[in-house]
Amino acid sequence: MGALRRKLSRAGLSGLLVTHLPDVCYLCGFTGSSAALAVTRRAARLFTDGRYAIQANEEVKAARVQIGSSSPAVAAVQWLAAQPGVETAGYDPTRTTVAELANWRAALPARLRRSFLSALPAPFVELLRCVKDQDELALMAEAAHLGCRLFDHILKFIRPGIPELEVAAELEHRARLLGAEGMSFETIVASGARSALPHGRATEQPLPRRGFLTLDFGIILKGYCSDMTRTVFLGKPKPGERHAYQSVLEAQQAAVAAVTAGISCGEVDEAARSVLRRQRLAEAFTHSTGHGVGLEIHELPRVGAGQATRLAAGMVITIEPGIYLPGRYGVRIEDMVTVTRNGGEVLTHSPKALIEL
Amino acid sequence: MGALRRKLSRAGLSGLLVTHLPDVCYLCGFTGSSAALAVTRRAARLFTDGRYAIQANEEVKAARVQIGSSSPAVAAVQWLAAQPGVETAGYDPTRTTVAELANWRAALPARLRRSFLSALPAPFVELLRCVKDQDELALMAEAAHLGCRLFDHILKFIRPGIPELEVAAELEHRARLLGAEGMSFETIVASGARSALPHGRATEQPLPRRGFLTLDFGIILKGYCSDMTRTVFLGKPKPGERHAYQSVLEAQQAAVAAVTAGISCGEVDEAARSVLRRQRLAEAFTHSTGHGVGLEIHELPRVGAGQATRLAAGMVITIEPGIYLPGRYGVRIEDMVTVTRNGGEVLTHSPKALIEL
Repeated sequence: MGALRRKLSRAGLSGLLVTHLPDVCYLCGFTGSSAALAVTRRAARLFTDGRYAIQANEEVKAARVQIGSSSPAVAAVQWLAAQPGVETAGYDPTRTTVAELANWRAALPARLRRSFLSALPAPFVELLRCVKDQDELALMAEAAHLGCRLFDHILKFIRPGIPELEVAAELEHRARLLGAEGMSFETIVASGARSALPHGRATEQPLPRRGFLTLDFGIILKGYCSDMTRTVFLGKPKPGERHAYQSVLEAQQAAVAAVTAGISCGEVDEAARSVLRRQRLAEAFTHSTGHGVGLEIHELPRVGAGQATRLAAGMVITIEPGIYLPGRYGVRIEDMVTVTRNGGEVLTHSPKALIEL
Repeated sequence: MGALRRKLSRAGLSGLLVTHLPDVCYLCGFTGSSAALAVTRRAARLFTDGRYAIQANEEVKAARVQIGSSSPAVAAVQWLAAQPGVETAGYDPTRTTVAELANWRAALPARLRRSFLSALPAPFVELLRCVKDQDELALMAEAAHLGCRLFDHILKFIRPGIPELEVAAELEHRARLLGAEGMSFETIVASGARSALPHGRATEQPLPRRGFLTLDFGIILKGYCSDMTRTVFLGKPKPGERHAYQSVLEAQQAAVAAVTAGISCGEVDEAARSVLRRQRLAEAFTHSTGHGVGLEIHELPRVGAGQATRLAAGMVITIEPGIYLPGRYGVRIEDMVTVTRNGGEVLTHSPKALIEL
């Protein structure tokens, strides 16, 4: 909250309305599904509804809690407008719907309707969030480590004939038993020709005797998300399949090696993309190299072609190039990497040499 | 898509932009995480990115697929603006951020920037979605039935000393093995004094020897969500606890009995609330009576105090009154109910008499 207030001062803002729930959680610790946080230079107040009265009082730090029966955001806007010295309140236009803004304005006194709410020019809280502090980095390392343990576990479970869905079920069950609050996104288990689907959800399809199997999954631990992908081979790969795997691995390692504070996200992406271009596989790499991760599975920065944002120490990003050959197979390899002053620290320790099962 | 086009005509709209993903899925079947659908009176086109090229071609019905590298919504807006006879395109202001709208406008030719995009006065697709057709009702009955089977299963698993998290893990694992694509929301397992938290996530806390245990969970089956709550008792309830349970059960049954096409949502809510008011428990009932459910876990209509929306045959809603006594215990009972012309059909068949374990 201290860093936020300094940022408010620098931006010349006397008030801030925070409605995106991961931002609310980041700033005051509240994890319920209905909330708005109002921040001035002197005070902060968390608005929620009766379902969360007990939870809010247990969780919320650095803000007073106010329970109401109307919309928490409307209550927060009205509270901000009533604070002495607050002439304008910033809101995040990337997290506010057109209808919400109209409702908030309608709830203000007529003289404030046009001027009081002001769209922030850039993500305000999310830019704070993308640089993690030591406590957050420790949690994220722990979350990534839990992911690696799950990968170890699932390797023993995988065999031809098991439906993809059972692999996902086993992975998710074990995640829960190891303490995860849940999965950070829908588990991807894509085998055989389905590995050519970058987002292939687990289906009833049995694992083949021979072919690639892509596992892309993440867990949530104390609010923080992990994200990792490994592609393994069932049976014996042919030289072409092995070559495809090695090309993606080389691209992934090149991008990991490029990570350091000060480099642009576009340069990290290009490190991976240029390797695949040399192998004439650039067209099969149909997505970005990675993304920030933290309280949300997708956060800033975007690590894609041409992105000018520069990495800063304390950011945690994924590096996950992949290639997809429709009707044949796909390969993707993904690690979480913490940006440091002199390079990157890989948080995902599972082996990356091709595993044949 | 036929019903949508008739609705477009009635609204005098020549174009529609659909960006809310459950709406996109409802209209054309696409289930990927990045998409926009553009609809005119003659044509429909689904825009997505390269990651979903194969999946879109497999899934999409009643629309042409266009793969691009820019934002799908921007591509959809530009396509709509280029269609002959399309003078204005409606968008949903409740699902469009202030920043998105600005981006879309900026991507239009200057002469169209002010007038081309028009905020729909009411949820357009979501109002279609809330009345389910026979195929959808069959899927929702199946999803609700799967939920009941999970409840049967978990009753055999529950015993004092097991952490709440293991109960959630077992429930979710079995859900996957029975064919669920995932859970429709974070599973609530709240025991003892934690049952007074309406949204008590499963924790490491072991189940007590004596006390209430609230289980609120849902699964996703072929895209459709289920939602049910049962509160059981570990050990022998005292008269006061039994009375609290009976009061909630009576309120729940009164609201279920009130469900029929033509009644207002507020009247259904009042049917439950008045029972609890008579028992001097109205203040402990801190939330609404229910909500629509379908492709999303929370859909229209809202079944809350004062809601004027009238139920229509084919809507599927939850009926879930509860009471919460901080520091002591809570009770909630929830069924899914299909609205019919002459009443309501309860889809959740699990018993509601107090179960003592």
